[in-house]
Amino acid sequence: MRRSERLIGLTKHLLDRPNQAVSLSGVQGLLNAAKSSLSEDVAFIRQALEGLEQGTIQTISGAAGGVRYIPRLSASERTAFAADMVSRLEDSSRMLAGGFIYMSDILGDPMVIDNVGRLFAEAYSDSHVNVVVTVETKGIPLAVATAHYLNCPLAIVRREHRVTDGSVVSVHYVSGSNRRIQSMSISKRAMPDFARALVVDDFMKAGATCKAVVHLLAEFQATVVGTAVFAATTEPKEKLVADYKALFEVSDLEEGKVPIVLPVMQSDAVLQDKGEMRANP
Amino acid sequence: MRRSERLIGLTKHLLDRPNQAVSLSGVQGLLNAAKSSLSEDVAFIRQALEGLEQGTIQTISGAAGGVRYIPRLSASERTAFAADMVSRLEDSSRMLAGGFIYMSDILGDPMVIDNVGRLFAEAYSDSHVNVVVTVETKGIPLAVATAHYLNCPLAIVRREHRVTDGSVVSVHYVSGSNRRIQSMSISKRAMPDFARALVVDDFMKAGATCKAVVHLLAEFQATVVGTAVFAATTEPKEKLVADYKALFEVSDLEEGKVPIVLPVMQSDAVLQDKGEMRANP
Repeated sequence: MRRSERLIGLTKHLLDRPNQAVSLSGVQGLLNAAKSSLSEDVAFIRQALEGLEQGTIQTISGAAGGVRYIPRLSASERTAFAADMVSRLEDSSRMLAGGFIYMSDILGDPMVIDNVGRLFAEAYSDSHVNVVVTVETKGIPLAVATAHYLNCPLAIVRREHRVTDGSVVSVHYVSGSNRRIQSMSISKRAMPDFARALVVDDFMKAGATCKAVVHLLAEFQATVVGTAVFAATTEPKEKLVADYKALFEVSDLEEGKVPIVLPVMQSDAVLQDKGEMRANP
Repeated sequence: MRRSERLIGLTKHLLDRPNQAVSLSGVQGLLNAAKSSLSEDVAFIRQALEGLEQGTIQTISGAAGGVRYIPRLSASERTAFAADMVSRLEDSSRMLAGGFIYMSDILGDPMVIDNVGRLFAEAYSDSHVNVVVTVETKGIPLAVATAHYLNCPLAIVRREHRVTDGSVVSVHYVSGSNRRIQSMSISKRAMPDFARALVVDDFMKAGATCKAVVHLLAEFQATVVGTAVFAATTEPKEKLVADYKALFEVSDLEEGKVPIVLPVMQSDAVLQDKGEMRANP
């Protein structure tokens, strides 16, 4: 195999496995190359990715060592994504009765799903997340992409559980939007004990749903490392969960009006990260 | 930029955009290269991917021309995936009351989600799908990955619609498992008219849910090009939808027994494709 072909093959192998430790011995057979050549190739791929602001390759030393692709969006990709989202969201036809904003079309766009997954994974890449948790339904696609880029399993909290969920753990909570008592459940077998969980959702108003998820995860002795949402409302300023990150902040949510959408994702410094919180609140 | 760096950058640019027409003029600036060099690079990448059975690069001629990455799993990746799934599914502890099989943990595994998305996208790569439709909840992750690899939007059918879905279209149907009348809805704005839809779900027994989705999509004058499910039961042999593809066939679903799991995904010839069907059944 020629060197350039090997570089392409190794690049694909790594990109297909974001945040996953890849052993170079494991790919030797696949690419028919000596480990020393592969190490050189890795250095090249790292340099190329970093030069294009497209992430990097980390080297993990030790017995379980290897290399790992860390995805990242370039500054221009971030800016373009933010501008696209603002122009699509700032549209009076999206406003629904009760101050809700219609986003299902945007949350079904594969480019949006992928970019949000990359941004969330990047924001929590150092948090040692080992499970991504979301509440059905609209946040699931974003959680799938986040779990892909963080290389960890996805667990879905359900409003109504079914026979196919097996044994479940449930909690009751008071919904933020209509003040009614609701319940949510998670399949026991899908949720590891003592996990480090990242909660992902599409939208946060007061944060009652996310707070309920934190309570639910406390039943599994989980540490919630944070909550990542696509959009959060400006009001109320104080949410029921302290440590959330939003990509967009929305305000002026009234039927017939044009909502105001502020991207708060340009740099990590702007994200409202308030540190880590124990699941047991 | 050195040639090898450019190759890595272009490989990443294409892999990040499966089934999407990428204009070489568009990436000239990004990679700082002449179009002729990029064309040579594309030929190289195509050769490398094909040599590793990792898909190909198609050239699209004409004014809107460009190149497009078509993903594919290699034969050895398929075999390894099938073996892994069989060994995880053939486990008596997965069997639940009523002949249901527990799969939520497997359907939350990012490697499984990604592989299923690739396999479904590959099976329908020539069907000109422009929307992937799924029913909440457990099929959503598979549908997200399929929509990613087919580069088309995802629309989610809901059992109970909410204010944030905006205007919806609903149908009633008789559920296959408990013979009760149920309803399902889809947001009008998330579903294009006259679409070519691929229905994705995790599990098919009789096919009542998928048949109801076909009815629902008929309201949008959609053509359903097929239904792709992760697992289908061997019995009943005749499903309520004619044109489905399953990756695995399961039988002997009884509490306390070990289910029998047959991979039916090794080659396209084995998949039960019965052609295309109009949404209006």
